[in-house]
Amino acid sequence: MLIATPQSMFFEEPLALTSGASISAYTLRYETYGTLNADKSNAVLICHALNASHHVAGCYPDQPKNIGWWDSMVGPGKSLDTNEFFVIGVNNLGSCFGSTGPMHINPATQSPYGADFPVVTVEDWVNAQALLLERLGIEQLAAVMGGSLGGMQALSWTLQYPEKMRHAIVIASAPNLTAENIAFNEVARRAIVTDPDFNGGHFYESSSRPETKPKRGLRIARMIGHITYLSDDVMNEKFGRMQRVELAEQVLTQTSMSSNTPPAYRYSTQEVEFQIESYLRYQGDKFAEYFDANTYLLITRALDYFDPSRSSNGSLSAAFAKVKAKFLLVSFKTDWRFSPQRSREIVNALVDNRVVVSYAEIDAPHGHDAFLLEDQRYLSLVKAYFKNLTQELNQSPNL
Amino acid sequence: MLIATPQSMFFEEPLALTSGASISAYTLRYETYGTLNADKSNAVLICHALNASHHVAGCYPDQPKNIGWWDSMVGPGKSLDTNEFFVIGVNNLGSCFGSTGPMHINPATQSPYGADFPVVTVEDWVNAQALLLERLGIEQLAAVMGGSLGGMQALSWTLQYPEKMRHAIVIASAPNLTAENIAFNEVARRAIVTDPDFNGGHFYESSSRPETKPKRGLRIARMIGHITYLSDDVMNEKFGRMQRVELAEQVLTQTSMSSNTPPAYRYSTQEVEFQIESYLRYQGDKFAEYFDANTYLLITRALDYFDPSRSSNGSLSAAFAKVKAKFLLVSFKTDWRFSPQRSREIVNALVDNRVVVSYAEIDAPHGHDAFLLEDQRYLSLVKAYFKNLTQELNQSPNL
Repeated sequence: MLIATPQSMFFEEPLALTSGASISAYTLRYETYGTLNADKSNAVLICHALNASHHVAGCYPDQPKNIGWWDSMVGPGKSLDTNEFFVIGVNNLGSCFGSTGPMHINPATQSPYGADFPVVTVEDWVNAQALLLERLGIEQLAAVMGGSLGGMQALSWTLQYPEKMRHAIVIASAPNLTAENIAFNEVARRAIVTDPDFNGGHFYESSSRPETKPKRGLRIARMIGHITYLSDDVMNEKFGRMQRVELAEQVLTQTSMSSNTPPAYRYSTQEVEFQIESYLRYQGDKFAEYFDANTYLLITRALDYFDPSRSSNGSLSAAFAKVKAKFLLVSFKTDWRFSPQRSREIVNALVDNRVVVSYAEIDAPHGHDAFLLEDQRYLSLVKAYFKNLTQELNQSPNL
Repeated sequence: MLIATPQSMFFEEPLALTSGASISAYTLRYETYGTLNADKSNAVLICHALNASHHVAGCYPDQPKNIGWWDSMVGPGKSLDTNEFFVIGVNNLGSCFGSTGPMHINPATQSPYGADFPVVTVEDWVNAQALLLERLGIEQLAAVMGGSLGGMQALSWTLQYPEKMRHAIVIASAPNLTAENIAFNEVARRAIVTDPDFNGGHFYESSSRPETKPKRGLRIARMIGHITYLSDDVMNEKFGRMQRVELAEQVLTQTSMSSNTPPAYRYSTQEVEFQIESYLRYQGDKFAEYFDANTYLLITRALDYFDPSRSSNGSLSAAFAKVKAKFLLVSFKTDWRFSPQRSREIVNALVDNRVVVSYAEIDAPHGHDAFLLEDQRYLSLVKAYFKNLTQELNQSPNL
């Protein structure tokens, strides 16, 4: 297993944000895997989605179970081979895993930012990532890569810094959110904001009430998220209408009743009756412990706002006129959150601009979650793409 | 417009419930439209879904805007023609529109039932409806009809009282909930139950805090509901990524900027930015004012529990062996909450039992909501079905 070492880079120069606001000084937390080659041509930037971080691959020496969120994709000999590439994971501004975010001190007030943390956009994250790469001395990325919201960042890189990458790998993503996507984000945000413990976003300071945190809202937000990450089919396969039966009851059922008789209902509206309820509550509880409520608001809003076609009268083709990178796009048939149709919109707009683009629609059952899972067709495809990229780098080390 | 007159029927005899509990005395609120014919053969029972009531059609003399929830379907000259049929709408037990529910006094404690209201099932509702029909002197229904959860009741009627109806009309329904359906119900319930104002379900008594009601939870529940009632496509068509612009801003935009420039983003995580957010908040606020939180828990649980195949090792065909009614089933292509696939499962199990069944899949864009909307193909189809039923009644008034 790869050993990961988180690092921090401090930026004193203020960062101007899309909203007109700026962040006066900030830190970016990041990790790198593999070795940057002599001509600095083998760097791959990984952009993270909603609840992930800079910890893309490997584990920490003292936390062997804390494995990077895309460890199935990134590592020695894996699809994105860290023996060949220098891989960088960055925690985005406003997130809650070490980069400057709402829980940190606002230099203007000497109190935590809380709800006053400026609203950040995909474009802002890309600008911050670009500054980090500058510090690392990387002038051009071999590739920028991400899934879901991470894919939006990869796409935005090719528009904001068209010269700064050879390839963009955009997985399970979309050119913008649909009304339904925004709707799910909004329900999650309302659950958080109307939780009395949210306290207008300034819950870090409530020293009178220690450990106050809008956990109820975060739980609901995460439960909604999990429903939309999975396909209806995979949910039926994994959970179906299976009831949650305590071990003692199971033994009882097996010995005293026909195995075909389902366990009795509890006839309760509040107890866990079905396995799917147990799964969602567990996921919600876990998330509410480690995730920050203000970060959830910021990141879902960045999702809502992303829309590169906005500046060109809704035409994605016009927006993509500046693209120079080559593209790999991957979507998953059962992904109803970011459906294949949305990836095809990107493909079509790229093709309109004669961009070199490869597109694969993977017939995986897991819905949106598929981009994080070990599907051999998917992993092999990305592996082959990076093998070609290695050859390309060897043949023309400088563009 | 039909004038509706709500009526009440009191039942002193306790009702035994599926859970083993019973309700010691209860009232059913109902409305009837049209005239029961001499041989009492023209009665049609309408079963309601989650948030509807006995007020199926027409309006009240003093509330001309309070129009019944299925007024597009039921009335003089409409698909279910009240000049031909005697139509009955009943508010179900545990609901909050006049029939005995959680907000009423529990005779055992002389306090409101609150969360102690017994868990009721689709089967319990059907039993209570059957007792009401007995009181009305109706031995056999011409038809029992419902959409969504109402369709489940119609289906259950044909299993619990196979002799007591000629026809069952089951619209936009399912033989049971999928894991995803249960998941959405569970998130809604958690939002309600974890709202501090829920107070363990005993929020009616908090005389110290007047008007305390878990409105935050109800709002979230309703917002989730609305997302699942609509199709992705119709949401995009109605709302898309349209921003909510104040009138003053609109005028400003039209005069000072090109009409192709979208209005500026507000860069806020809590203000309404998109029309879809405004719509959902409005729906949530409205619902939280009139709906009861304990009722929401009870009705979603009745949905979760319904599963006629449960007593026959999961075989719907075996469960349907007792069916005597003829069936009309209707589903809507864009309904992803109760998809056509689920209706086809019912059709197939009925066909296995050589039941006479008509099935229509309507290509309407509106998702699950379509069953409540005015789609001419749908309304004409039901009208034709009832025309045939009228002929059948004339030809053989007694079965």
